[in-house]
Amino acid sequence: MLSACLLLFGCSSTEAPPNLIIIFADDLGYGDLSSYGHPTIHTPHLDQMATEGLRFTQFYTGASVCTPSRAALLTGRLPVRSGMADDRVRVIFPPSPGGLPTEETTIAEMLQSAGYATGIIGKWHLGHQEGQLPTSHGFDYYFGIPYSNDMSPATSGGARVQTYPPLPLMRNTEIIEEEPDQRLLTRRYTTEAVAFIRNHAASPFFLYVPHSMPHIPIFASDAFEGTSTRGLYGDVIEELDWSVGQIISAVKEIGKERQTLVVFTSDNGPWLTVNLAGGSAGLLRDGKGTTWEGGMRVPGLAWWPGTIAPGGTTVALATTMDLFATAAGLAGVALPEDRVMDSVDLTPVLVDPQQEVRDMVYYYRGTRLFAVRKGPWKLHYITQSAYVGDAPVTQNPPLLFHLDHDPSERFNVAAHQEEVVAEIEEAVRQHRAALVMAPSQLRVPAWE
Amino acid sequence: MLSACLLLFGCSSTEAPPNLIIIFADDLGYGDLSSYGHPTIHTPHLDQMATEGLRFTQFYTGASVCTPSRAALLTGRLPVRSGMADDRVRVIFPPSPGGLPTEETTIAEMLQSAGYATGIIGKWHLGHQEGQLPTSHGFDYYFGIPYSNDMSPATSGGARVQTYPPLPLMRNTEIIEEEPDQRLLTRRYTTEAVAFIRNHAASPFFLYVPHSMPHIPIFASDAFEGTSTRGLYGDVIEELDWSVGQIISAVKEIGKERQTLVVFTSDNGPWLTVNLAGGSAGLLRDGKGTTWEGGMRVPGLAWWPGTIAPGGTTVALATTMDLFATAAGLAGVALPEDRVMDSVDLTPVLVDPQQEVRDMVYYYRGTRLFAVRKGPWKLHYITQSAYVGDAPVTQNPPLLFHLDHDPSERFNVAAHQEEVVAEIEEAVRQHRAALVMAPSQLRVPAWE
Repeated sequence: MLSACLLLFGCSSTEAPPNLIIIFADDLGYGDLSSYGHPTIHTPHLDQMATEGLRFTQFYTGASVCTPSRAALLTGRLPVRSGMADDRVRVIFPPSPGGLPTEETTIAEMLQSAGYATGIIGKWHLGHQEGQLPTSHGFDYYFGIPYSNDMSPATSGGARVQTYPPLPLMRNTEIIEEEPDQRLLTRRYTTEAVAFIRNHAASPFFLYVPHSMPHIPIFASDAFEGTSTRGLYGDVIEELDWSVGQIISAVKEIGKERQTLVVFTSDNGPWLTVNLAGGSAGLLRDGKGTTWEGGMRVPGLAWWPGTIAPGGTTVALATTMDLFATAAGLAGVALPEDRVMDSVDLTPVLVDPQQEVRDMVYYYRGTRLFAVRKGPWKLHYITQSAYVGDAPVTQNPPLLFHLDHDPSERFNVAAHQEEVVAEIEEAVRQHRAALVMAPSQLRVPAWE
Repeated sequence: MLSACLLLFGCSSTEAPPNLIIIFADDLGYGDLSSYGHPTIHTPHLDQMATEGLRFTQFYTGASVCTPSRAALLTGRLPVRSGMADDRVRVIFPPSPGGLPTEETTIAEMLQSAGYATGIIGKWHLGHQEGQLPTSHGFDYYFGIPYSNDMSPATSGGARVQTYPPLPLMRNTEIIEEEPDQRLLTRRYTTEAVAFIRNHAASPFFLYVPHSMPHIPIFASDAFEGTSTRGLYGDVIEELDWSVGQIISAVKEIGKERQTLVVFTSDNGPWLTVNLAGGSAGLLRDGKGTTWEGGMRVPGLAWWPGTIAPGGTTVALATTMDLFATAAGLAGVALPEDRVMDSVDLTPVLVDPQQEVRDMVYYYRGTRLFAVRKGPWKLHYITQSAYVGDAPVTQNPPLLFHLDHDPSERFNVAAHQEEVVAEIEEAVRQHRAALVMAPSQLRVPAWE
């Protein structure tokens, strides 16, 4: 496949490849931005990003919770392939011994090898023991919190949380503060991100900004607290929106807006069970933790003046895992050939929103395949609502929804579409037959 | 109050007041446009209207079904005041003897008296017996269908429908066709609307375009059928979107874009019980026929280059009834003084989206007040789901939702907000005490 560099720019080997910035919100739902229909959250910078760039309406995460979703994005692979999925322990906790295996190649490692400066500012959540931090996975620089902000004895309740160490704020591999003021996280991440951009004006860079917000407990700085019509959750989203504006301004300031692809998305859907501290999936069903659309379909915005035409919307299927192959395309490097990738280069969609680059989406919950999308159709083998409570229900026969016509998953039409079901089942048989599941890295022996 | 004409333009008496075009979709839901977050319905002309104009996120109808909603819009009054609300017969049917009382003043009558040319192209649904048609209510010209397109023995089933006369297509007071091809309705209405605009380039005009679509049975013309990712319902919305583009082009063609306010909205929320033939309320709860937000909050777009700044969004409360006072403001005429009006001039919001002009919204279902909004708070006295089936439930104590924080009406907070409840109850007491309910015009003696 031709790289984006060759395809679009005919770049010579002396010309620097484009920069990549991925801004990753935590638990932000499909319906939480103005441009995705929220009535009382005001997101002018993200809306501007949409107006100047491309808005995806069918953009998926690789999992419906934090750790596996981040593994999927950075490796371009389903979390079951890397051991970053487990049915008992859903994410990494402070006592977790495991992390992303070193055999995995992250976007950062790939781009670092291709001569990019690489930075992560924000929440890692792929292992925090020795040798598991971002600097062991291709990032030159790390500033942020190694796991979720609710894993803090200072801000969250519960007997188990009280046994955790103070929440660490890290720079590279050092803890520079304990229990940092969470009201300042978005602002501090932003300052760091802007500085990283300014410091790397001369070289190609990859900047990954996985925000801690709006994961609970939610916090906004004084400048935003009490300002949103939506209340505190809105304050938090509006501060993230401001942050996106700052990052885009910094890209313009260094004169690299035509050499930088900026992507904004979320790790999974809204945490509905935390009530008003959680967001909205808009018209989509259910939220975080589930394999209903609300759990895994999220906002997806791409901005790259001169390459992406302004104001487009695409219904093309895309996933966070596709950012790996897209990054490879930018850098003009090949994908790893020694492993199965679940990643397709999105460049054709970026330059022409009418294009399609993938036909299938797999919805795993832990290590089990709960549902599959093929084209407009989604087949549910197992359903389970909400993040906690509620038992899984095996659907036999499976439920079939036409997502293009029925995005809210209201009408099971399996009985009328036997051929479609058979075709999807065949694709799933092939997928399962080829799947090599890695051993879980998420188990916590102390809890067993 | 100063009229918009005086306030904004300092117009002299020789200068023509601005034109007004109201485009009214039928059963289009809050979530059915791209700009309100629909993933697979593509509405570029309406999105352009939003980009160039103002998008309301808290815009309400006067009722959750057809006839009372249209009465509310045209009279600027709650339907209970005009007799256009009834608890047994919800709308006008072919055998209905009643219609909008002649004592009511419509926007068309008011603007006709002020020298406007007035036209209605589309669905009337406020009475079709002698003396009840639009030409008896201030419209110079009428082209369209007098009631809903499902009241047709040719396209709809049911024993009662089979007793109805053929669906009439009318020009002024004459039936010019029986059972017109419904696939062509949107296109024919558009042709008529564009011709009306061209024919009235020289004089101020009021054009009201109440589309028959997307009320069931849904139809699109050959040019649109099979084209939308959303299926037939999407085809229908995308043809309406095209129609809006044609109307705006016609306004530009006659050179009146700076002298014309165009408003797009819907008569009520989506008809959820007709499954995929109905639309989506997005993140709002329930749909057509109900007093949950999905029944009465609809898209609201206003376009008026030079007066409305581009790209704004407002959370200001507004209702279709406010278009009456807004129209009076445009024309520089006073509101009727011999009756209670439920209408406030929206001009301050049009020129400054931060402004607020109303604090209360009343949600009637038939003649009963089911719920009330005051500021961000909504109090439900009675709830009832869906358009049919399901019995009303009196809520004692009433349910309280904070709509700005909780637009999906998930969290009843009445127990924690006694003062808010008391304040709303006092406002409701005053409202009820002053309310004079007119006798129902909707009864069908033959059915009693």
